[in-house]
Amino acid sequence: MLKNIKIGCASTATKYGTRLDTAIVKLEKNAIWSGLFTSNKFKSAPVEICLEKINKNISEPKVLMINAGNANAATGKRGKKDSENLIEEVSSLLDVSGDNILPFSTGVVGELLDTTKLSQAFKRCTDQLGKNSWKDFANAIMTTDTKHKIVKREFALGNQKVNVIGVAKGVGMIEPNMATTLSFVFTDLKLSKIQLKKLHKDICDHTFNAISIDGDQSPSDSSIFATTSEKKSDIKKYHKKIKNNFLEVFRELAEKLVLDGEGATKLIKIRVSGLSSYRASKKVALKVANSPLVKTAAYGEDPNWGRIITAAGNAGVNEFDMKKLSLKIGNYPVLINGNLSLKYSEAKGKKEFRKKIINIEIKFGKAKQSALVMTSDLSPEYISINSDYRS
Amino acid sequence: MLKNIKIGCASTATKYGTRLDTAIVKLEKNAIWSGLFTSNKFKSAPVEICLEKINKNISEPKVLMINAGNANAATGKRGKKDSENLIEEVSSLLDVSGDNILPFSTGVVGELLDTTKLSQAFKRCTDQLGKNSWKDFANAIMTTDTKHKIVKREFALGNQKVNVIGVAKGVGMIEPNMATTLSFVFTDLKLSKIQLKKLHKDICDHTFNAISIDGDQSPSDSSIFATTSEKKSDIKKYHKKIKNNFLEVFRELAEKLVLDGEGATKLIKIRVSGLSSYRASKKVALKVANSPLVKTAAYGEDPNWGRIITAAGNAGVNEFDMKKLSLKIGNYPVLINGNLSLKYSEAKGKKEFRKKIINIEIKFGKAKQSALVMTSDLSPEYISINSDYRS
Repeated sequence: MLKNIKIGCASTATKYGTRLDTAIVKLEKNAIWSGLFTSNKFKSAPVEICLEKINKNISEPKVLMINAGNANAATGKRGKKDSENLIEEVSSLLDVSGDNILPFSTGVVGELLDTTKLSQAFKRCTDQLGKNSWKDFANAIMTTDTKHKIVKREFALGNQKVNVIGVAKGVGMIEPNMATTLSFVFTDLKLSKIQLKKLHKDICDHTFNAISIDGDQSPSDSSIFATTSEKKSDIKKYHKKIKNNFLEVFRELAEKLVLDGEGATKLIKIRVSGLSSYRASKKVALKVANSPLVKTAAYGEDPNWGRIITAAGNAGVNEFDMKKLSLKIGNYPVLINGNLSLKYSEAKGKKEFRKKIINIEIKFGKAKQSALVMTSDLSPEYISINSDYRS
Repeated sequence: MLKNIKIGCASTATKYGTRLDTAIVKLEKNAIWSGLFTSNKFKSAPVEICLEKINKNISEPKVLMINAGNANAATGKRGKKDSENLIEEVSSLLDVSGDNILPFSTGVVGELLDTTKLSQAFKRCTDQLGKNSWKDFANAIMTTDTKHKIVKREFALGNQKVNVIGVAKGVGMIEPNMATTLSFVFTDLKLSKIQLKKLHKDICDHTFNAISIDGDQSPSDSSIFATTSEKKSDIKKYHKKIKNNFLEVFRELAEKLVLDGEGATKLIKIRVSGLSSYRASKKVALKVANSPLVKTAAYGEDPNWGRIITAAGNAGVNEFDMKKLSLKIGNYPVLINGNLSLKYSEAKGKKEFRKKIINIEIKFGKAKQSALVMTSDLSPEYISINSDYRS
């Protein structure tokens, strides 16, 4: 599947021993791509370069080059020059315009790239093109991830079989807008640039931009959605089916990210409904998702729901009204229109909080629409990982 | 000092054994007060009642009644009625209008008050009036605090000696606007209601509203600033001196709160300058203060400054410009106008991060004004306290 995409990986043999930590992905001539990037005002050099290049339309192969271990962020002018030089080298190795090569770096912030080692590694990646698997690619982009993340999907549009493959990495510094540190989703369905971009944006809003590990968005966060344009179909007729299938791939990747969240032992799903807009509902859900008090309670399996509504009330949403608020943990109502449910008991809440997946529902009156946000719990393991990440 | 204030404390003998956990403070006839409360949309019953009463001007003694262990929040109509009934009882015991009695509750959210026990305890508080100390009061309002928090200060205005005493509690759910869970500051300097309110607001902005433990503002957060109006002075002439002396009391209380933050091992001071407004600078500083990644790095004594600027960039301040950003850890420049300082070394950063107090400075070009925000680190102890707070 996706035979018009070639992958080459290599190891710089620096931070991760002999593990693969660099990759080049080459998409054949008719490929088009869409990119969404961190909205952090502090952007890595590669993100700045991507933003400059992503909208140029040059009908040549398209190339992604990725390194893990160093984000090339907060490295000033020198950092940008380093990335540009590496692009130039790959450009002449592959005979592809530099404008069609997008760089991605993930890892520690504030260190200059080891350009000698990276230059050698990318050279080996180009030699390897077509010889590495999707699994190799997914492994090569990991940092503190404990496992690689790949989602594959196939669906039929009439007689046509469409393929989708997504690969992602990132387990910390995950926050909308632009959730995962790096994600790359590919399909062979022919789409116009406008169709591709719109699908990408809509789907990200409900997937990568609706998960949160620690409320910090990294300077490197990037999502690429690309198509090799092989399979033609009636996009209008099948629009819903196409969107749902792509959405599933993004959603599964997002779930994998949360479940592999640093030190995560739980997946917490927060659904908010009954506010006037999706945006308002998502704002409340995100505030709950980012509350360290809610996240530690989840880790401790303590159904301390007071913290849930405290966080919700802090979202700064004006239409928040305690008198209309109903809260459910799993299937158990806790609050009904702001009053304590007489049927709720601590034991019921505890039962739900003991589960691997905790469902929390906040409703304000009748639901018109709802927002779902996913997060992980906050464990001592998170602190252990993050208090000595660099050592 | 402050002889026109009488304190009575008691124990409900419920959650905290025989420890004092209820208090009544009575201010004599000419007292005036100012109150600032949580901006969480979800407010406890006592905060709702305070907001209804605080601006009524009745020339009678003023009374504060406080209980620790139960916040009386998310308890609906029944919770509000419970607080109102307790006020009524104290009102007849002390023969003071209910409108001049403000209730404060702190502790667990979502449980109904044990009104029988509280009613008995408040009765004992009224019997005790004048027999308890400031230290008793500071102890009686604690929840997960490991120590009580009192600041006393005396200063001269001409021949006049002015007294100030502040008492506070709160070690979690601390976030502007209205930082500490509960704080009570008293003076004997005669001020007009307008002067008192303005001082209170200005000082809180730079003290209680500039600290953060975990980014969650509780539904109970309240700050009272009151004067017994005994000492007359030329307020205009001494304005700066008066403000600075009051500010010091609030600042010391705020520092005590942060240092007693749940599981805190470090005090982190973040100063941001060079942006167009105090508000923008404070927004950036708060985002850094609330980043779990920055806080765990501080706990691990890892000078991972990339996380500092990552959080800063996430504050959503438009004028944030990496090319103008200079970063210092302690006295060591790390970034100068967006470029790595060649003199900085990991060892220097480590030295600063090993200190009990970590100073972080972010500058954007020339400083016109600066905002200082204080926070604590995030330790495994925080998780341990918060994953089983209620058990």
